[in-house]
Amino acid sequence: MLRITVYNEFIHERKHERCKAVYPDGIHAVIADFVSKGLDCSVRTFTVDNVNTELTEEVLAQTDVLIWWGHVAHNKVSDEVAQMVKLQVLSGMGAIFLHSAHLAKPFVQLMGTTCFLRWREADESERLWVCNPGHPIANGIGPCIELACEETYGEHFDIPTPDDLVFIGWFKGGNVFRSGCAYRRGMGKIFYFQPGHETYPTYKNPEIQKVILNAIGWAAPVRRADKLECPHEVIAPEAQS
Amino acid sequence: MLRITVYNEFIHERKHERCKAVYPDGIHAVIADFVSKGLDCSVRTFTVDNVNTELTEEVLAQTDVLIWWGHVAHNKVSDEVAQMVKLQVLSGMGAIFLHSAHLAKPFVQLMGTTCFLRWREADESERLWVCNPGHPIANGIGPCIELACEETYGEHFDIPTPDDLVFIGWFKGGNVFRSGCAYRRGMGKIFYFQPGHETYPTYKNPEIQKVILNAIGWAAPVRRADKLECPHEVIAPEAQS
Amino acid sequence: MLRITVYNEFIHERKHERCKAVYPDGIHAVIADFVSKGLDCSVRTFTVDNVNTELTEEVLAQTDVLIWWGHVAHNKVSDEVAQMVKLQVLSGMGAIFLHSAHLAKPFVQLMGTTCFLRWREADESERLWVCNPGHPIANGIGPCIELACEETYGEHFDIPTPDDLVFIGWFKGGNVFRSGCAYRRGMGKIFYFQPGHETYPTYKNPEIQKVILNAIGWAAPVRRADKLECPHEVIAPEAQS
Amino acid sequence: MLRITVYNEFIHERKHERCKAVYPDGIHAVIADFVSKGLDCSVRTFTVDNVNTELTEEVLAQTDVLIWWGHVAHNKVSDEVAQMVKLQVLSGMGAIFLHSAHLAKPFVQLMGTTCFLRWREADESERLWVCNPGHPIANGIGPCIELACEETYGEHFDIPTPDDLVFIGWFKGGNVFRSGCAYRRGMGKIFYFQPGHETYPTYKNPEIQKVILNAIGWAAPVRRADKLECPHEVIAPEAQS
Repeated sequence: MLRITVYNEFIHERKHERCKAVYPDGIHAVIADFVSKGLDCSVRTFTVDNVNTELTEEVLAQTDVLIWWGHVAHNKVSDEVAQMVKLQVLSGMGAIFLHSAHLAKPFVQLMGTTCFLRWREADESERLWVCNPGHPIANGIGPCIELACEETYGEHFDIPTPDDLVFIGWFKGGNVFRSGCAYRRGMGKIFYFQPGHETYPTYKNPEIQKVILNAIGWAAPVRRADKLECPHEVIAPEAQS
Repeated sequence: MLRITVYNEFIHERKHERCKAVYPDGIHAVIADFVSKGLDCSVRTFTVDNVNTELTEEVLAQTDVLIWWGHVAHNKVSDEVAQMVKLQVLSGMGAIFLHSAHLAKPFVQLMGTTCFLRWREADESERLWVCNPGHPIANGIGPCIELACEETYGEHFDIPTPDDLVFIGWFKGGNVFRSGCAYRRGMGKIFYFQPGHETYPTYKNPEIQKVILNAIGWAAPVRRADKLECPHEVIAPEAQS
Repeated sequence: MLRITVYNEFIHERKHERCKAVYPDGIHAVIADFVSKGLDCSVRTFTVDNVNTELTEEVLAQTDVLIWWGHVAHNKVSDEVAQMVKLQVLSGMGAIFLHSAHLAKPFVQLMGTTCFLRWREADESERLWVCNPGHPIANGIGPCIELACEETYGEHFDIPTPDDLVFIGWFKGGNVFRSGCAYRRGMGKIFYFQPGHETYPTYKNPEIQKVILNAIGWAAPVRRADKLECPHEVIAPEAQS
Repeated sequence: MLRITVYNEFIHERKHERCKAVYPDGIHAVIADFVSKGLDCSVRTFTVDNVNTELTEEVLAQTDVLIWWGHVAHNKVSDEVAQMVKLQVLSGMGAIFLHSAHLAKPFVQLMGTTCFLRWREADESERLWVCNPGHPIANGIGPCIELACEETYGEHFDIPTPDDLVFIGWFKGGNVFRSGCAYRRGMGKIFYFQPGHETYPTYKNPEIQKVILNAIGWAAPVRRADKLECPHEVIAPEAQS
């Protein structure tokens, strides 16, 4: 049974009527719901209210795949939590960063680049084209996924070249974006997936849900460092015996 | 001084009025012109009329970068010429394959995949977005290149993951495409560049010309195998001395 | 239940006493044995005697993962069979090429390079170092695998940069080699694995067996083209509907 | 004319007789000497004594390629300097990290991984094998470089998969290492090169010097962000105009 942890800052959905209408219980509630229905798993959720107090090393050590949504409160996540997430990924935990989490502290630190991009809120339609049809994350998806409305993200997206590029996004207004990017880092795997602006019902779309379920399966650890200590202990430089 | 060789099948421009109007002397003539003006180089051109008789091993051995445009006459190029081109690339010659040359024999054989793609002739506008701004092939190019009309190419493009993805194309009708793909193969370098349908003046566009000039500089050999023999001789498996 | 097909040319083991002593029933028999014990699968084997008559399109279409060992009889495999194998891989079939199969026709055609390498038969010890510990193919393997004797293979190995490099081989006499190379091509996956000279009991080593079992799991198709026709039909360039 | 900056912490060479004997004026002096002789360039050097006071943003903004050697004083480099180096690389500056600089702050932050490795000081011979002979960094280098003595570094080296792997190291005692790793990050380029322990005359070896000169040429900026401000300003997310 997979152990899934979902972090969603849960600010927009409490403040803005437009978001509340789409996600009355928060984006995390919708994600937890389809994940627990779609996989044999347990799901725990965290928000900005308790991320620094309850998303502990112990929780992370018992997480197979972490899903992360954040936007306006990246800086409310403590450096300690960001560092713990980063080390757990390098120790084998899977991580899925969604939409505006391209600027989440642990993602930026794992990438090593600015992770900046072009963006525009213009209610544009998007097509997510599969450019790697044999990849497990694209399993069961047709040539493209159509979304009636998304926030526009555009290149240049300042990330390291993905180990596997799975989706490229097309936006009606004239932009393209590397929308589904898979990385191996340390013993862990990371998937960045662009759709999911807080004002649109993107996470209720069955194809988007399918991609996220696939990504969980792909990112689940093959193996995991036994103990979570400082990285010197986790993945130590040792003379061979 | 760089030695450039241009192959263009030169069929459309002799048969169809629309193409003749754009490229009265053939696509190769326009390419040869801007290349010889833009670089310290010599340029030789070949067409389907003489590719099998005059594009010899000797010519290829004295070519630093080969530029290739083909569409309806891929099968008119002999297997021997295709094999020679492939081996020269593996020996260090640079190669730039343009537009419908995604199905040219030497390109397909160097890639090892089908190189199929979606396509549509619909006079759509294209934007070529730079997704690798520090790459030498993107030098001097802004965030994107605008083309008023191009043939639409779309994913899934069945190629190996590029070693460097430099451009992603956006098409008004709803498609995206990995439009600028750089590969290292053997001691040689290959650049595939999507724009350039025979009915549009794409190769007269200064930014497209700049990309091709950049690609020549990038693809020019760092070193070259001395003799061109069968690959066993060129890059032989030897016990180390 | 996975459907595994093993091709081994089976020449050395019938001709040379030294090989016969190690693999009296052929390398394919040893592989078929540990694969059928280690996985829920069916296994069929083919040799140079029947590869061109019985390794049909139908067999390949019903194969999830093909394992290939060849050395002195690469040219005995017909161009038709090589082409069928290549197209099936691009359609989704997994393929594992072992040791001297780096020069097997379908492998060379899928890579697009010469696939040449340095080599030396000197009864040297080898260490296969894991350089990608989170990769599923390295699952359950320690920092390295020790082999008392192997044929020495060395760089430069003329292959495209692997999508995932899983093992690097160290040879006592002074060579290194990219020994475990994973590729995505079309909808299929390919793993090249260097150990397995015909005079050594490499395929009886439990860790080598574990790697091959892992590679089967990794290479098994996510999805597969329904029909096996010429590639235009399998992965056709179509205007989107 | 290229503007080169060399940082060497310069601690071992002042403290330990064995290092002083090899590099009486410090590793940076030897590097500055062969770089200024080998290229049309200016060279400035910095040590742990002035890195935090004199290696300013202005100096970095006027540096085309930065060369970095550090070992026991990584933590003496301030977080501010590390951050400035990282941002300048993302803005286009080239960076070459040598040997034990795999744990230098800016390198670790650019990689996003632990950058840990196995190591052993055992006066072992090394062979650096070229696995990418067409790469500009390998220009003029034979099949391998022989070093009579080096510190042993071994896999698993916890780095992102290099964009180009140029050298693989072989160590007599049984280890292999990805010794020459090229990365694109942001608009900049990074080369990690393993040889150069402080007790051996590695940087006096003409082939090692040739590799470093090649790497400077490869890493020199194609273009550079005009101003060095916080990354939001340097590479800003903007709606397209």
